[in-house]
Amino acid sequence: MSDDIAKGTTRRGFLSATAAAGGALVAAGAAGAATPDPLIMEKQPWATGLGDGVDAVPYGMPIKFESHVVRRNVSWLTADVISSINFTPIHALDGTITPQGCAFERHHSGAIELSKDDYRLMINGLVETPLVFTYADLERFPRVTHTYFCECAANTGMEWAGSQLNGSQFTHGMIHNMEYTGVTLRTLLQEAGVKPEGKWVFVEGSDASSNGRSIPIEKALNDCLIAFKANGEALRKEHGYPVRLVVPGWEGNMWVKWLRRIEVGDAPWEQREETSKYTDTMADGTSRKWTWVMDAKSVITAPSPQVPITHGPGPVVITGLAWSGRGAIKRVDVTVDGGKTWHEARLASPGQPMALTRFYFDHVWDGTEMLLQSRAIDETGYVQPTKAQLREVRGVNSVYHNNCIQTWWVKASGEAENVEIS
Amino acid sequence: MSDDIAKGTTRRGFLSATAAAGGALVAAGAAGAATPDPLIMEKQPWATGLGDGVDAVPYGMPIKFESHVVRRNVSWLTADVISSINFTPIHALDGTITPQGCAFERHHSGAIELSKDDYRLMINGLVETPLVFTYADLERFPRVTHTYFCECAANTGMEWAGSQLNGSQFTHGMIHNMEYTGVTLRTLLQEAGVKPEGKWVFVEGSDASSNGRSIPIEKALNDCLIAFKANGEALRKEHGYPVRLVVPGWEGNMWVKWLRRIEVGDAPWEQREETSKYTDTMADGTSRKWTWVMDAKSVITAPSPQVPITHGPGPVVITGLAWSGRGAIKRVDVTVDGGKTWHEARLASPGQPMALTRFYFDHVWDGTEMLLQSRAIDETGYVQPTKAQLREVRGVNSVYHNNCIQTWWVKASGEAENVEIS
Repeated sequence: MSDDIAKGTTRRGFLSATAAAGGALVAAGAAGAATPDPLIMEKQPWATGLGDGVDAVPYGMPIKFESHVVRRNVSWLTADVISSINFTPIHALDGTITPQGCAFERHHSGAIELSKDDYRLMINGLVETPLVFTYADLERFPRVTHTYFCECAANTGMEWAGSQLNGSQFTHGMIHNMEYTGVTLRTLLQEAGVKPEGKWVFVEGSDASSNGRSIPIEKALNDCLIAFKANGEALRKEHGYPVRLVVPGWEGNMWVKWLRRIEVGDAPWEQREETSKYTDTMADGTSRKWTWVMDAKSVITAPSPQVPITHGPGPVVITGLAWSGRGAIKRVDVTVDGGKTWHEARLASPGQPMALTRFYFDHVWDGTEMLLQSRAIDETGYVQPTKAQLREVRGVNSVYHNNCIQTWWVKASGEAENVEIS
Repeated sequence: MSDDIAKGTTRRGFLSATAAAGGALVAAGAAGAATPDPLIMEKQPWATGLGDGVDAVPYGMPIKFESHVVRRNVSWLTADVISSINFTPIHALDGTITPQGCAFERHHSGAIELSKDDYRLMINGLVETPLVFTYADLERFPRVTHTYFCECAANTGMEWAGSQLNGSQFTHGMIHNMEYTGVTLRTLLQEAGVKPEGKWVFVEGSDASSNGRSIPIEKALNDCLIAFKANGEALRKEHGYPVRLVVPGWEGNMWVKWLRRIEVGDAPWEQREETSKYTDTMADGTSRKWTWVMDAKSVITAPSPQVPITHGPGPVVITGLAWSGRGAIKRVDVTVDGGKTWHEARLASPGQPMALTRFYFDHVWDGTEMLLQSRAIDETGYVQPTKAQLREVRGVNSVYHNNCIQTWWVKASGEAENVEIS
């Protein structure tokens, strides 16, 4: 027991006292915990009857009160919903794990239904022995489990031209973070036997788009996974059931779903998804290719446009997510004044390589407007850039790889808006 | 790139070659990966049409092929399903995270529906200022995120008298492991101000049972959480929405759901749930109380009675879970011969305090029967005991705290059965 508790000295009055310390007057009762109404615990009608039994829901869904915490697509973003995107409700989540049920989707020809019995994975090309694996075969190889983020290269892409989307779900929600279980790609390539001239692999899916991508052999042999579970259970249909590729730290488009073929070759394939798409338009109009790694990035998820402050001045938890495709997050800084002063945020736990890190900054809000930003620093020392720094090199016509510092303007009303500051 | 790959030398033929090394002949084609039928990739009808769009399922459910991976109750175990238990399908999961949708439930008067607006949490008793918190109040206090297992004290309880349940879901499925986010109980107790004579807290839920339990103040001030998120999203109704108590490493009955009141006192309350229930009957007929900690334990989840070996001799991944209420798992051993020889298993990642650890043991099965067991060792040096060692002290009439080594008899057919060996 700590001395302060043992002595009966406390930090009682946190919500009201610290609000006052913040310099603002607080309306009576608005600051939170109150002396109890002796009858309040008797006013709970739910305590007078029985609830649902354990056979009510064999597989549970969120309670009806959370029906707003769902993936959302933006109707004008793509021509149709088959080749489109929806967004993880990161504004309403906490911690680091993304439940599969609300983890963003991006398909090029829709989410297909493919059974384990029908599933086959072929390895061909520059290998000693071309092979076809059944799902049952894959389960017999040594298995690993790791937590990684998967971020669409286009996440935050609307910020290149301006601040058009009002909410962290829409600006930064093309990301999820799950615990993957599977076999390493290295294991399967070893099984087929990569020939000495094999320098690249080509990966494609079973969906109509096939979504083919080239991956250097060094990455393929390093940390890629042939994954069949996410957060403990089978992948969901929309995440590539029964098998998807996991390419830690690299853009989501390479994480091929419904993975059906891996070809080993001596050069990249230069397919559609790595030439006309998923290349970066530069300020001078040229395009840069092979920009696979998702650089260090962060965003404040609350308060944010979808999560206004509703309680008046005083303590408020500023929280968000940080990640880097080059390794672990080492530090996150937060500012409430648009970058004039930065404060080191508290990481919920030490950063893990290529996985989301949750940060918290416990702030006492004085009730005046704020310009909220967060800035991630990864283990390589890389510092998340400003939007101006990115535009200097890349211009404003890019779509992909925007990892700029994001700004939320929190007004005195507690409402927040996506803004740019110079 | 490793030398073996670069030189074109490989471990090709893993499935068949190692099967042979294991001493058994393998029927042609039965051992897994085969040279590809050149037409096989053309035989995939799902690749010829479009799949579902991103607006199909705002909140996703498992694919229909996984409809067997659900919580299950055992009809004869309790008088009704309102005060009862269902079981996590641990036999079908991998990794460490338990999705909320299939995480086991135990209620004493059913799962109630309680909105955030209606929610109140009272702290009273030996405190400087009794307080009532709204849900919005709780969100303003400094927040933490940790992954912990929650195990019912009765998990594996049927093993005291014999081996009656055939499947790891039923013998060991009263457990889940989630990433919890919330406020520490310490923070709220400090807010109310614990008086020097306050040595225990009493916690109760909003459901009709109220499920009251006494907790020593040292534990309350150490690592207990007032949790409102699990695996990133709001708690589900059946897990205590909107707020449950998390008591790391201690029996699940103390993790009060729909938490409504915390009273500070100078002695334990000796309520029903800690006297007539959740005490341990000893070999001499007396009862032991205050046995809160869940000691180190492990189980092989596959192969197991619900997960037979279906592929004949050769490589098989033996996998399972280990955990300890006293800290991190340091090592797990596996035996295939009923304990004559033990092999150190591979941990998917280093054990974390009071959280599930996944272990793998890559075995080459010779096709003869096996007696599979696992044995967990935690950071205190404690070794998971045999059933005989437990019975020596506790007899066979207990219900709770059975952390014995579990045995699966895998027959030559690949089918497995729950057995006892002397």
